Amino acid sequence: MIAPMFGGHWFDRLDAARSDLGQFAALLSRPDARLLRLDGLDPLLGADGRLTFEAVDDAAPLALLGLVDDAPVFASLRPAFAPPRPSYRLLEQLGRTDAPIYAAARSLVDWHSRHAFCARCGRPTAIIRAGWGRHCSGCGTDHFPRVDPVVIMLAEHEGEVLLGRQPQYPPGRYSALAGFVEPGESIEDAVARELFEEAGVRATEIRYLASQPWPFPSSLMIGCIAVVEHRALTIDHTELEDAFWVSRDGVRAALDAEPGAPFLAPPLWAIARDLLEAWLAGCDAPP
Amino acid sequence: MIAPMFGGHWFDRLDAARSDLGQFAALLSRPDARLLRLDGLDPLLGADGRLTFEAVDDAAPLALLGLVDDAPVFASLRPAFAPPRPSYRLLEQLGRTDAPIYAAARSLVDWHSRHAFCARCGRPTAIIRAGWGRHCSGCGTDHFPRVDPVVIMLAEHEGEVLLGRQPQYPPGRYSALAGFVEPGESIEDAVARELFEEAGVRATEIRYLASQPWPFPSSLMIGCIAVVEHRALTIDHTELEDAFWVSRDGVRAALDAEPGAPFLAPPLWAIARDLLEAWLAGCDAPP
Repeated sequence: MIAPMFGGHWFDRLDAARSDLGQFAALLSRPDARLLRLDGLDPLLGADGRLTFEAVDDAAPLALLGLVDDAPVFASLRPAFAPPRPSYRLLEQLGRTDAPIYAAARSLVDWHSRHAFCARCGRPTAIIRAGWGRHCSGCGTDHFPRVDPVVIMLAEHEGEVLLGRQPQYPPGRYSALAGFVEPGESIEDAVARELFEEAGVRATEIRYLASQPWPFPSSLMIGCIAVVEHRALTIDHTELEDAFWVSRDGVRAALDAEPGAPFLAPPLWAIARDLLEAWLAGCDAPP
Repeated sequence: MIAPMFGGHWFDRLDAARSDLGQFAALLSRPDARLLRLDGLDPLLGADGRLTFEAVDDAAPLALLGLVDDAPVFASLRPAFAPPRPSYRLLEQLGRTDAPIYAAARSLVDWHSRHAFCARCGRPTAIIRAGWGRHCSGCGTDHFPRVDPVVIMLAEHEGEVLLGRQPQYPPGRYSALAGFVEPGESIEDAVARELFEEAGVRATEIRYLASQPWPFPSSLMIGCIAVVEHRALTIDHTELEDAFWVSRDGVRAALDAEPGAPFLAPPLWAIARDLLEAWLAGCDAPP
């Protein structure tokens, strides 16, 4: 069972209440209604690593996140800007059950902050659907929050996996190759294209393993494993600083953080780490 | 092997040339450079169902689609608007090898038509990266084409599958349930939430089967199968007109278009049909 952080705990998002002002108002006035506490786009965590909440203050526009522990939870849509990369300290503390709620809130608050105007006609837009969209009264267009699908994949050849590093990684860190799915591509097409573009290897079999929402700012990470036909690499140095093949023993040593391991493993909240663990556990053979 | 239309034939998109004006100009001046012929957003097909091309006319801004049969192919980014639904007559004629090129072009031309302004500050934006983005010189934001992930799934219970119909479907048509992946969800979370929201069923196991780019306007259809824990349905009539359980024999009769089949099957270009065929072929048992 592969269970990457930020996914795996779906909650009732109360979709029907988004387009029903009466239901929305009733939820807002419930005594157990709560507002997720955020500092900009970062969560304000309790000492136990749990998300914290406060009484609903409807001075700012609110988004309805859904039911959490049977209580309606909202997020404030005050404009908030933050660096696109997460605070590692916060990710280390944040619990797995709370992570999906935070992920939804962060992506949504951030999307509103960056989409106040109509991309079609340039005029200001207004929040609709309980925070899950914006409407332009100028040209009538509705806009909805973005989720960008990204493929992230281990290439495999004769019992070794291909890992790469980007220049901004910490020293020694290697991870799975990845790239955005483009218009006109299936998941498998994007995996094959990215492996060819970034490392010059040709995939012969591609298998989906697991997925993860990644709220920095709003990606859907789609984890795959691909068998490729040869070892020779042609690295695209505009994308990757380096890439290399690693054996099972090397991957195991890295995941166990052994001294002398051939690379520094991806952190616990990255799906690349889950993919490596699944590969070690025997998910390398396509069915 | 599940091979939905619009995917399965990835082509070299010449990513490196998108950010290299010299490479872009060299491709544009090649004698074999070609422009995809479109009528608005519809393809102009030859008598053989193939896409047709013409000499490159760089009076309009161009997007570099990539290498097709070793020749650089471009699309004109003249604003073009069309209904979001495809012309079925064209989809019946369009060949599978050409479909991914058309899908990329259609989604890209349409995205530019609907994104001339900066969503962050409202000012006009300009085309960058050989047609694969827009830049706002007002606030400095880069914008990239959207791909919206959608889950589409067969729910299974004791050898039957759950199908639903939306009011706008042709008479008798039933298909797989579907919905957009939202911020903060994995693929599996979205499948479970949609099945619960639309039909009141709880998924216990979810398995990915196949994916498909869907250029109307720009979705990534992610096909799954979910085992659910009971048959009783609570249908959300704002989303579905009806939903029902169908046996193997019923699905087979519908796919074969037999008289008396319990429903009209999805068309050949819909991944829902591929999912039904895979299910009949025995993909129903999670590994």
